[in-house]
Amino acid sequence: MVNRFLAACRKQKVDRPPVWIMRQAGRYLPEYRALREKAGSFLTLCTNPELAAEATLQPLRRFPLDAAIIFSDILLPLQALGVSFQFPDNGGPRLAQAFAGPEDWAELQAPASWESMEPVAQALRIVRQALPPEVALIGFCGAPWTLACYLLEARGSSDWTKARIAAHRWPSQLQKLLSTLAHAMGEYVAFQVAAGAQAVQVFDSWAGVLPPEQYQELVVPALERLFRSLEGLGVPRILYLGHGSHLLRTVAALPLEVVSVDWRTDLRKAARLTGKVVQGNLDPAVLFASETEVKRHTKAMLQRAPEVGYIANLGHGIWPDTPIAGVEAFLTAIQENP
Amino acid sequence: MVNRFLAACRKQKVDRPPVWIMRQAGRYLPEYRALREKAGSFLTLCTNPELAAEATLQPLRRFPLDAAIIFSDILLPLQALGVSFQFPDNGGPRLAQAFAGPEDWAELQAPASWESMEPVAQALRIVRQALPPEVALIGFCGAPWTLACYLLEARGSSDWTKARIAAHRWPSQLQKLLSTLAHAMGEYVAFQVAAGAQAVQVFDSWAGVLPPEQYQELVVPALERLFRSLEGLGVPRILYLGHGSHLLRTVAALPLEVVSVDWRTDLRKAARLTGKVVQGNLDPAVLFASETEVKRHTKAMLQRAPEVGYIANLGHGIWPDTPIAGVEAFLTAIQENP
Repeated sequence: MVNRFLAACRKQKVDRPPVWIMRQAGRYLPEYRALREKAGSFLTLCTNPELAAEATLQPLRRFPLDAAIIFSDILLPLQALGVSFQFPDNGGPRLAQAFAGPEDWAELQAPASWESMEPVAQALRIVRQALPPEVALIGFCGAPWTLACYLLEARGSSDWTKARIAAHRWPSQLQKLLSTLAHAMGEYVAFQVAAGAQAVQVFDSWAGVLPPEQYQELVVPALERLFRSLEGLGVPRILYLGHGSHLLRTVAALPLEVVSVDWRTDLRKAARLTGKVVQGNLDPAVLFASETEVKRHTKAMLQRAPEVGYIANLGHGIWPDTPIAGVEAFLTAIQENP
Repeated sequence: MVNRFLAACRKQKVDRPPVWIMRQAGRYLPEYRALREKAGSFLTLCTNPELAAEATLQPLRRFPLDAAIIFSDILLPLQALGVSFQFPDNGGPRLAQAFAGPEDWAELQAPASWESMEPVAQALRIVRQALPPEVALIGFCGAPWTLACYLLEARGSSDWTKARIAAHRWPSQLQKLLSTLAHAMGEYVAFQVAAGAQAVQVFDSWAGVLPPEQYQELVVPALERLFRSLEGLGVPRILYLGHGSHLLRTVAALPLEVVSVDWRTDLRKAARLTGKVVQGNLDPAVLFASETEVKRHTKAMLQRAPEVGYIANLGHGIWPDTPIAGVEAFLTAIQENP
């Protein structure tokens, strides 16, 4: 049987668009909530290989998805760089201390080994063995800029003022930090590929807070370094460009196969301006509408998608309280295609 | 002496681009912080005509700005619709109750009179008398969608999930709410014009969370109603399109004169796609850089701006801890132009 996801990443023709859902292993699933409770904490769920594998596989048992994405968090590998943080039960992650200025991040460097991330590798091996060959397994990491946003701010933010100010006050030092993170994340995803990941997605969730010229000058060199380092691995490289409808031209020259776009970005334009395979981009809010409406919006999305080189997905991670019926209607509409 | 701001709004040629700064009366000014302390609360500062006028005038005494914007808040006029809220000293505004579903907002309607907003009118009269004729006075209101975001969520949010879900669950009821808000805000800004406002800016700060088709279907009819109702007043109508680089074509047909764009939007493209006068759009983060860098970025912005029909500004409200030296460098670069 053909692996639709991998075929589409290579711009091969497939019977219907492959589909998976960003954050598909998550709180909208009752079985996930039970597992999370059993684990006791989010970090335990990420670092216990059996539990992480189970969380990864849950959505695959329920839905006809074409890919699994390893259950983890973009901040997790920063532990190997000496960064410590917590995931409180309410609200987003918090770093123990902010890396607010150049002197704070000067010492950060890629670890000599990724041994401490062995639980992630083990979870990948368990999942790969459990999956049929037609379902792909995706590894992932945070993009240098998005990770730097968290390092500088120490917690989530809507406009990332500290990171944006740092980019203007200390451009060369920040560029060095981004390069270090690119180097580290390149090694970390290669480590995931060695354990069974068949594609890698780099999440630049906060790409869009920067204007195009600044993204080009500051961020693109680090992304270039990261994606270039993966060249020899032979796996499709995906960049999630959050809030980035104004950055499409900026990423066109990067050595990667797939650009994953958000719900405000026109799929046709994304394919045209980047020349890449495109992934996305239903608004996660749509899944709260009636099933008829979910199907109508999904079909409209498919009509705007390129015929070859397209992977169906949401334009952002699925929200915790999404109704299962909405997810089912979304997947049915894709399977009914054309 | 020519009023550069009003001339530029009419696409007349001026000696240099007019300039003002979104949220120019605010916490980055030490004299504002002193006034705010004297007032005791943000709401008092907004509703005491002398204090609001003083806050409005402070930046004009310090900087050579071409326009003043009345010191107020987009939520203030919602009091006249029966909505109550607080501005805690830390964090953003909080509504006393959320208008979470259609039954909550069904009763909302434009007030019979704007008498309760008389302090705003009085502040406008004081400011207009104090300003020389070459400095324009701008009134403002929140756009229907942005106000609805606050009503539905009861507080600030980065992705406005509740508002976006409501837009898919109850599209026709939400459209009715937007229409009510458009009607009310149209009357409210007309009330400001009667008191001396010479231009009006409608802040759709959260326009950009919606994709273009949805903005067109759901939001544009309400904006059309609002701007159409101002037609007879003869004052320039400005729309601030926050996070809206993907919505430029969508607003091209609206009856308004100026589109104010954020720091990710290309000014040249904004002018071309909307056909309007454009306003903006320096990233407020730039003002934290060295004076040389602030000037370099400002000159680069001016080079991308249209020669006629352009108003210099930031791409977003100025941040509370902005260094005064950054603001001065920004204004100097504009005065030195070309």
